[in-house]
Amino acid sequence: MADKKRILSGMRPTGPLHLGNLHGALENWIDMQERYDCFFFIADWHALTSNYEHPEKIPDYVKQMMIDWLSVGLSPEKSTLFVQSHIKEHAELFLLLAMITPVPWLERVPTYKDQIVQLAGKDLSTYGFLGYPLLQAADIIIYKADGVPVGVDQVPHVEITREIARRFNYLYREIFPEPQAILTETSKILGWDRRKMSKSYDNAIYLSDSPEEIMEKVSKFVTDPARKLKSDPGNPDICNVFDFHKLYSPKETVDEIRHQCRSAQIGCVACKKKMAKNLIAFLEPIREKRAYYEKRPELLAEIILTGGNKARESAQRTMEEVRAAMSI
Amino acid sequence: MADKKRILSGMRPTGPLHLGNLHGALENWIDMQERYDCFFFIADWHALTSNYEHPEKIPDYVKQMMIDWLSVGLSPEKSTLFVQSHIKEHAELFLLLAMITPVPWLERVPTYKDQIVQLAGKDLSTYGFLGYPLLQAADIIIYKADGVPVGVDQVPHVEITREIARRFNYLYREIFPEPQAILTETSKILGWDRRKMSKSYDNAIYLSDSPEEIMEKVSKFVTDPARKLKSDPGNPDICNVFDFHKLYSPKETVDEIRHQCRSAQIGCVACKKKMAKNLIAFLEPIREKRAYYEKRPELLAEIILTGGNKARESAQRTMEEVRAAMSI
Ligand code: SF4
Ligand code: SF4
Repeated sequence: MADKKRILSGMRPTGPLHLGNLHGALENWIDMQERYDCFFFIADWHALTSNYEHPEKIPDYVKQMMIDWLSVGLSPEKSTLFVQSHIKEHAELFLLLAMITPVPWLERVPTYKDQIVQLAGKDLSTYGFLGYPLLQAADIIIYKADGVPVGVDQVPHVEITREIARRFNYLYREIFPEPQAILTETSKILGWDRRKMSKSYDNAIYLSDSPEEIMEKVSKFVTDPARKLKSDPGNPDICNVFDFHKLYSPKETVDEIRHQCRSAQIGCVACKKKMAKNLIAFLEPIREKRAYYEKRPELLAEIILTGGNKARESAQRTMEEVRAAMSI
Repeated sequence: MADKKRILSGMRPTGPLHLGNLHGALENWIDMQERYDCFFFIADWHALTSNYEHPEKIPDYVKQMMIDWLSVGLSPEKSTLFVQSHIKEHAELFLLLAMITPVPWLERVPTYKDQIVQLAGKDLSTYGFLGYPLLQAADIIIYKADGVPVGVDQVPHVEITREIARRFNYLYREIFPEPQAILTETSKILGWDRRKMSKSYDNAIYLSDSPEEIMEKVSKFVTDPARKLKSDPGNPDICNVFDFHKLYSPKETVDEIRHQCRSAQIGCVACKKKMAKNLIAFLEPIREKRAYYEKRPELLAEIILTGGNKARESAQRTMEEVRAAMSI
């Protein structure tokens, strides 16, 4: 463990995970847990920043997210899986770092201004929202993470984390490593409407969807818009259904579909059914593991507790150093 | 206990306490602890907001402040005496309240703008400094305080606390009473230079000063500036030494001095000595109790621990309600 670099990443529990999350962050995490000492956390306090008016669903989202994680292969033996709000030390470090963090550093984080504009109706100019990157910094450095896997839009958040760590080290004592941003490709997967797959567009296929729901959703997929009749040849290169075939169907099927579509030998309805079948088969083991954990709430609670204890131990060690350094 | 109103107040540990603190806040607290369920805390996290660059002295200031409190008569049996940073729940509530507190509420607190201007050189535009009134609000409502004794300049801080409590109660559930500001007269006592007695003016007589230090400081007191020679009659009504006589000398002495000063029968040196002797006698029991606690560090640690446990219990009860209300 000690020689492995430590990685930290988190997700906000805002709803069930979908294929975009799987092929984006999650597959990357599953890959990383073989090579790094990984800390993955469910950022429920962060979920409050944009959703403080309706937090009722957060507890269920947290549980479902942990089930999603376990179902796709994140392992409580290999990684430390925990819930942010169970580790009160994040809040203490947030408060202490607040004392040394200039307000302009927070105001100039690009996502801050963007979101303030985008979510204008949502009354987001809260102190907590302004401090979002600071809480993230605390989340990261409290575990002395060496690396943080992020999409390109999150790089400024790692940058401000590095600045805050540097400032702390300069003012008091060299405690925190400066974490590196590990750039991860964001998933290119599209929803049925050909927009980026996203919960907020309501165009997503969730890991927890039943075969029936998947069938239903796939049937709504937009295909080659130029293909009006089954007898018209189609263009698979601009068809989202074909992109899904490439992900979930065997190579021979993909080649076959390409040919049959171009020569109008297959209709879109049949093509979609084929794809849906393969997607459902792909998700089957995930669905099975999900059912397993859903039937065992004590096991799930146990996993969450154990991960939390592991994380807390590490956070407490850091906080002892921090308090000593700050004479508090 | 249950039928008594709960009072909360705190002091920042920025140095030893002086006569101004005694005749201002402390005598008021001593009086209140007979009638209310009082929570008094040493605000060491708050001390960081303006002093984050040099926190080294805070631990000693905290200890000295508790000794000062005990020496003047605050009682760990009657009141809950504790140190803010020992109750991590303040940080958690601070973080949660951050999510619902609009930044403009904090920016418009009058002391914020004042201090930003006054302490321009001190690099105070930190996120923590902006959040100062929010941390105060958390300090207060986490104990469901009914009243907060404050000087007139602190009334806006109680006002924003009430607003935040109200907003929480409105968004989630009626948990927090809105605390009342209990206006307390600030001490009119002046330092040797006739400016308000204050640590920052370096003109203060500390509760912990030795008789020699007091003699020395009193000898520097500015008297009636028009009185050049001992043979000139003086005007006690404009003399700070006379104000001190009124506080620390028996009524007969005061009357005598008034007469002798006006008729040039006493010189300022003798007058000061008389006053200093009475002041030293007044502080004698405080000095004795201070020596008592200084010789018993385990007792002091025990008092701080017990007070902290009592406060934590109360804070934890509130936090359970808060977490349930916010679904977190
Ligand atoms: S046949 Fe398949 S690949 Fe071709 S346009 Fe229809 S859905 Fe797309
Ligand atoms: S005699 Fe005493 S009261 Fe009169 S001016 Fe001197 S110090 Fe003041």
